[in-house]
Amino acid sequence: MSRSSRRIRIELAYDGTDFAGWQVQPHERTVQGVLEATLTRLQGGEPVTLRGAGRTDAGAHARCQVADCAIRTRLTDDDLLYRTRRMLPDDVRVLDVRTVDAEFHSRRDALNKTYRYYLDLTGHGDPFRRRFALHHPWPIDRQALQQGLAMLPGRRDWSAFAGARCRVESRVRDLTAAEYEQVSRDEAYFAFTADGFLTHMVRNMVGQLLEVARGRRSPPAIERALGRSDRRDGGPGAPARGLHLWQVRYAGGR
Amino acid sequence: MSRSSRRIRIELAYDGTDFAGWQVQPHERTVQGVLEATLTRLQGGEPVTLRGAGRTDAGAHARCQVADCAIRTRLTDDDLLYRTRRMLPDDVRVLDVRTVDAEFHSRRDALNKTYRYYLDLTGHGDPFRRRFALHHPWPIDRQALQQGLAMLPGRRDWSAFAGARCRVESRVRDLTAAEYEQVSRDEAYFAFTADGFLTHMVRNMVGQLLEVARGRRSPPAIERALGRSDRRDGGPGAPARGLHLWQVRYAGGR
Repeated sequence: MSRSSRRIRIELAYDGTDFAGWQVQPHERTVQGVLEATLTRLQGGEPVTLRGAGRTDAGAHARCQVADCAIRTRLTDDDLLYRTRRMLPDDVRVLDVRTVDAEFHSRRDALNKTYRYYLDLTGHGDPFRRRFALHHPWPIDRQALQQGLAMLPGRRDWSAFAGARCRVESRVRDLTAAEYEQVSRDEAYFAFTADGFLTHMVRNMVGQLLEVARGRRSPPAIERALGRSDRRDGGPGAPARGLHLWQVRYAGGR
Repeated sequence: MSRSSRRIRIELAYDGTDFAGWQVQPHERTVQGVLEATLTRLQGGEPVTLRGAGRTDAGAHARCQVADCAIRTRLTDDDLLYRTRRMLPDDVRVLDVRTVDAEFHSRRDALNKTYRYYLDLTGHGDPFRRRFALHHPWPIDRQALQQGLAMLPGRRDWSAFAGARCRVESRVRDLTAAEYEQVSRDEAYFAFTADGFLTHMVRNMVGQLLEVARGRRSPPAIERALGRSDRRDGGPGAPARGLHLWQVRYAGGR
């Protein structure tokens, strides 16, 4: 195989607890940083720059993040898969590597993304889920919660749910699904699907929905918040630990 | 309520990753040590001594450990439940507290105990289970494994499966169940039930069974090992991270 450059698409999963998020930051351990360092070694020291489909927050997780980069190596896709697995720490794992069109862009080409937010509903707090779910031992008013959820889907400006650090030109996103699933007596999750998400958007939606579920906020308050252009009275966002980038969808099921 | 002493039975769960096991040791963070310190504070500084049903290894977990102690306090069982929950770190959680007969002894009164040993069968190694399961990406010969498992149940001297640190008079135990359950394509566990277990007994059984499952050891080798009085040729024990004390059973379903 020649050593001409090719573009690869990488699927990966990570426990975000001990990462300062996806995106490279000076002096911080980030998923992008750790994966770029590994790929750079496999390219003989020539730096690799990754693009990720979603910029997960510090402490947030990914069940299936998608990233892409140009790489110049004689290694096959399978070689890259097995070598990165051996070289990476055990809190970030490569699920798949494949060569794609030179034009592929993991974020711009994504049709939509699904995030899940997990709740631990036990009274005691499950020690096996403390890194991956928010402990929520209070009763949930399912009817109020469903009313709140029903107000969310739609194409609109989501400024009222954006974090202060959000720096994008357009804050218009199309949220196509907002659901609550009870997995068992002790476990539930929210699932949100959109063509894109603003910084902290899911955590801010979950924070408001949990206030509705506990009877501290009425479902119409969510509708009023949606009409605003700032986070005034938005209440606390939910912590990162329950948040999981679940799926990124591409045309043709790529 | 008077401040006479009473005996309480405590059920707890813990993520053992960051503990040097159950049993108190000088200068080490142990589950018994952390829980005793909390109960001692609730007894106004007078030291509390716990007895646990099972002495889990460093790095091993408990889904439902049972312990007991004498305590002198005006707090009710529910008060103790909620106060210990608030005071304990989030990797050890109290599930239940109740007053029992003064004669109750969590280890001696146990009819039997079940340990499970979890396997992560994914090729990549699931980052969300790396603390709680052994990554085992190799094919499993189910037929050979079942042959090996079938040889284990019985009442016998288990010296050949005891760890070097095992310090008990009798090494005779009655193993009543040894099973392998495939939960999904990506997850499986071993389950062992006995009236008692020797130090490292489950990890040594799992180590040998996995060698059989990979074709590195024949099922009859397990039968030969059972006849021995030492660990000669026992092969490597499985690491603690996959081991979970799952259930402790008492007469009358206590």
